[in-house]
Amino acid sequence: MTNYFDYAASTPISSFVLDAMKPWEVNNFANASAAHQAGRACAQAIQNARECIADKVGALPSEIIFTSGASEANNLALKGVAFKHLEKKGHIITSSIEHKCILNTCAFLESLGFEVTYLSPSPSGQVEPADVVAALRCDTILISIHHVNNELGTIQPIGEFGAIAFDNDVLFHTDAAQSFCKCDIDVDDMDIDMLSLSGHKIYGPKGIGALYVRDARDSGLVPLIHGGGQEGGLRGGTSPTPLMVGLAAAVQHYPTTVSEQERHFLDVIENYKWVRNGGAHVVSTTWSLTFESDDEVKRFTQEHPWLISQGSACNALSNVASHVLTAIGLDEALARRTYRISLPPHHINGD
Amino acid sequence: MTNYFDYAASTPISSFVLDAMKPWEVNNFANASAAHQAGRACAQAIQNARECIADKVGALPSEIIFTSGASEANNLALKGVAFKHLEKKGHIITSSIEHKCILNTCAFLESLGFEVTYLSPSPSGQVEPADVVAALRCDTILISIHHVNNELGTIQPIGEFGAIAFDNDVLFHTDAAQSFCKCDIDVDDMDIDMLSLSGHKIYGPKGIGALYVRDARDSGLVPLIHGGGQEGGLRGGTSPTPLMVGLAAAVQHYPTTVSEQERHFLDVIENYKWVRNGGAHVVSTTWSLTFESDDEVKRFTQEHPWLISQGSACNALSNVASHVLTAIGLDEALARRTYRISLPPHHINGD
Repeated sequence: MTNYFDYAASTPISSFVLDAMKPWEVNNFANASAAHQAGRACAQAIQNARECIADKVGALPSEIIFTSGASEANNLALKGVAFKHLEKKGHIITSSIEHKCILNTCAFLESLGFEVTYLSPSPSGQVEPADVVAALRCDTILISIHHVNNELGTIQPIGEFGAIAFDNDVLFHTDAAQSFCKCDIDVDDMDIDMLSLSGHKIYGPKGIGALYVRDARDSGLVPLIHGGGQEGGLRGGTSPTPLMVGLAAAVQHYPTTVSEQERHFLDVIENYKWVRNGGAHVVSTTWSLTFESDDEVKRFTQEHPWLISQGSACNALSNVASHVLTAIGLDEALARRTYRISLPPHHINGD
Repeated sequence: MTNYFDYAASTPISSFVLDAMKPWEVNNFANASAAHQAGRACAQAIQNARECIADKVGALPSEIIFTSGASEANNLALKGVAFKHLEKKGHIITSSIEHKCILNTCAFLESLGFEVTYLSPSPSGQVEPADVVAALRCDTILISIHHVNNELGTIQPIGEFGAIAFDNDVLFHTDAAQSFCKCDIDVDDMDIDMLSLSGHKIYGPKGIGALYVRDARDSGLVPLIHGGGQEGGLRGGTSPTPLMVGLAAAVQHYPTTVSEQERHFLDVIENYKWVRNGGAHVVSTTWSLTFESDDEVKRFTQEHPWLISQGSACNALSNVASHVLTAIGLDEALARRTYRISLPPHHINGD
């Protein structure tokens, strides 16, 4: 798919990852919970994968809870904390430009009696730390704000959110599906209590992700999937060894250099008239472009029939402006001329 | 793993399945929710997979909700129904020999104020329909009883449970992780409202399963993973196309004949003294054997160093008698001499 420019929606699986998965699909397919030799070998492979992922964000292996992806991780984080407070309920702070899985989980929690503050971003797409401080209440139980926006590429100041949460003794969760490996993350330096990540955004397999949970065993987090004691009792289900090993291999082999495709894009895109949304703090691999006119859209899409998205993949099949574009002030007409072009992810130095 | 006799814990992935997955890992890795051509091709592949799985149990494609496995499917079924009744609560009927993911979910629901009746099986491991009738209350919202027991191989009379549920206007869910493809299932004939199934028990990949939900769109089931609208809004998260296609391929290529390994086992096992647990209605591929003495255990395990389990994989790492063996009346001494030997699954005619 050489005309594919939708890497923020999903990436290919790298050959490193496929090779790493293979032995656990073909040679040793045991259940990692089994006490026999084959099961123990799977458990060890999973432990190695857990260490690799933990290292990447400065966490302990026991703090990494494998999930089926970032959506499940986000649900586990929000519901897992909320259900600790089901009797007295409580208040959650998030932003209006989170992924739908956060917003729909918050709506569900509101239906149970929780209160949620949805912070609006600035027109550049940034959630302001001062707004987080202003939203704090004595019954605030959680702040959940994403790291990199999936439509705009805007990098949020999660270290500042973490410091605010820490100072006020509130938990801080961040959805890092669009930033894990791309941006440097240290859960201690950034005062992050929970962090969601995804495999298929970093050349890993689809169907795997993880939630970092500070002091997971003592966190009191309520499981989303009750089960047979896997993942320290926080997430049931037979461990998918190939997917877990594949996720770790993706972390190990994550590219550090700019892709040819990114260079090609930069050459091409300067021939068109557009405004880039998302402000100054954006990742170089996700571009939200509002073309100057419908004619300019037509010229671009005809000359470059790339596979790209309007908004995120999850919003792709609806014809309305996405909640993110609406939140930064784009009207329907502007949103119709706005496209997300996303390039092969790689590590980005600095912020 | 030629000495592997733990197929009830997990099976290898068949080469048919690996071949079917490959194109969706390597050639088309798009997000199935994307509106572009590559995304639509993934969505079509997923729809084909959904149809294949639906056909297998006499359901409609729209009634198949993909999950990360049977544990998630079981959680979705029980919590999804319970959360519809969160205000007034209600009563659930299950058995004491369900998989841990059912029992732990029930314990969680009890902590929220739901009431659960755990039916004890007969000494042969069968849950009696008369006990289900006796347990019914006017506030019973759900009956959840598994199809084939994972430790004993006992086939439960789910058609009778379904009829009882139907007659009393109560929902019926069955965990079919150990029976899907092995036993014939028709959700209409058997009055099944929800059915959980797993990929890695039928030569499919780990990390994928499904919940059949009768009239899913109108079921009012509360999602476990809120997300971007995937799976008819009942299960969020980027669709793992390779895993979904792999699950369907496993259904299509499920073996219909007895394995060589099963024949070998039957030859070997007649040289030892044991009692088989689980009664007369058992699948031919799962054997729970209580050896006559510790010496007989020693003789067997030394002469046949097979990879087998005591109890299920989930209980494998604990040293206590499993809840299933306890429920059928085995004491610690007998349980210590009891092993589960499970053979390559295949379709079993009749029950």
